[in-house]
Amino acid sequence: MQIFHDKTALLVIDMQKAFVEPGAAHCIAGAKATVPACAQVIQEARAAGAPVFWIRRQYRADGSDVEFTRKEAWRKGGGTMAPGSTGLNSEELAEGLTAAPSDYQVLKPRWSGFFGTELDLLLRRLQIETVVLIGTTTPNCVRTTCYDAIALDYETIIIEKCCSSQTEEIQRANMEDMERIGAKIIRE
Amino acid sequence: MQIFHDKTALLVIDMQKAFVEPGAAHCIAGAKATVPACAQVIQEARAAGAPVFWIRRQYRADGSDVEFTRKEAWRKGGGTMAPGSTGLNSEELAEGLTAAPSDYQVLKPRWSGFFGTELDLLLRRLQIETVVLIGTTTPNCVRTTCYDAIALDYETIIIEKCCSSQTEEIQRANMEDMERIGAKIIRE
Repeated sequence: MQIFHDKTALLVIDMQKAFVEPGAAHCIAGAKATVPACAQVIQEARAAGAPVFWIRRQYRADGSDVEFTRKEAWRKGGGTMAPGSTGLNSEELAEGLTAAPSDYQVLKPRWSGFFGTELDLLLRRLQIETVVLIGTTTPNCVRTTCYDAIALDYETIIIEKCCSSQTEEIQRANMEDMERIGAKIIRE
Repeated sequence: MQIFHDKTALLVIDMQKAFVEPGAAHCIAGAKATVPACAQVIQEARAAGAPVFWIRRQYRADGSDVEFTRKEAWRKGGGTMAPGSTGLNSEELAEGLTAAPSDYQVLKPRWSGFFGTELDLLLRRLQIETVVLIGTTTPNCVRTTCYDAIALDYETIIIEKCCSSQTEEIQRANMEDMERIGAKIIRE
């Protein structure tokens, strides 16, 4: 299926070692298995000339920008995703995913890719009309980005096989909720 | 249970005829049944001196601020919730709920009570630390407001019996997701 065109941007959300690699501090159960599908979709976007945005978590080393409800988990994880960190609990992209120099990097301090970032400004400047969301985790960062994207008048497409949740039930319920507000869910 | 104190605000979300009254254009199945519980919680907030915010939908008569994914449904509904409208598909509060002159009215054009509104500015000025959310519908306006509230560092409490969804399954799945990101769900 050809979903990318020159008014489309691909947003790859939180596909970082600390969320994806088995054994990492904040590992999402379904995330690792989505890496090959994500890599393929990223390739399709590039082939179609659609810009690729890496929407990434990075927390200040002193934890001052960690969500207050997660400060404890962040501390127990050893202060994950510090700038420039490497290894299992780091902000690095998951194994198997590589950014190109021309890709956009957007650091976000909260769940939505639009919250406290310049994502909307960048998309407007590129005259993007449609955003395609892949990454993790479906109920939090993918979903909040989806709601904000539609609120900002972007047509929003979610590729389910490239998104992940802690359980299949969470994945299904969230896809259905997003579909009901007008997101297009690609399920094949 | 005493949940209100002087650093707490009650946010009553979208409890308007067009969403609540049976037969209305955008009626949420579970909403009408929550009115008595909402009325009681509003009374408790007032008794504790906590400010009450009516977070309300109102669409411009020409539809220019309706979510683009809902424009068709809004048109089919006859252009609901226009300013000053009355009756079944109106922006009026649901039957059984009454605002006091000293309450805050916040009109919102999207799902989240924080999106494109001065809600955050008002809460800061009042030095509010905790927001209590009631209203409809759980997966959309309640949930997006919850995520934004926590992102903005407000302790967030949801009173489940005062919230509603089209099905019990949607209600349950969304309460669980919100609980996992650190919202406090009051279930009794």
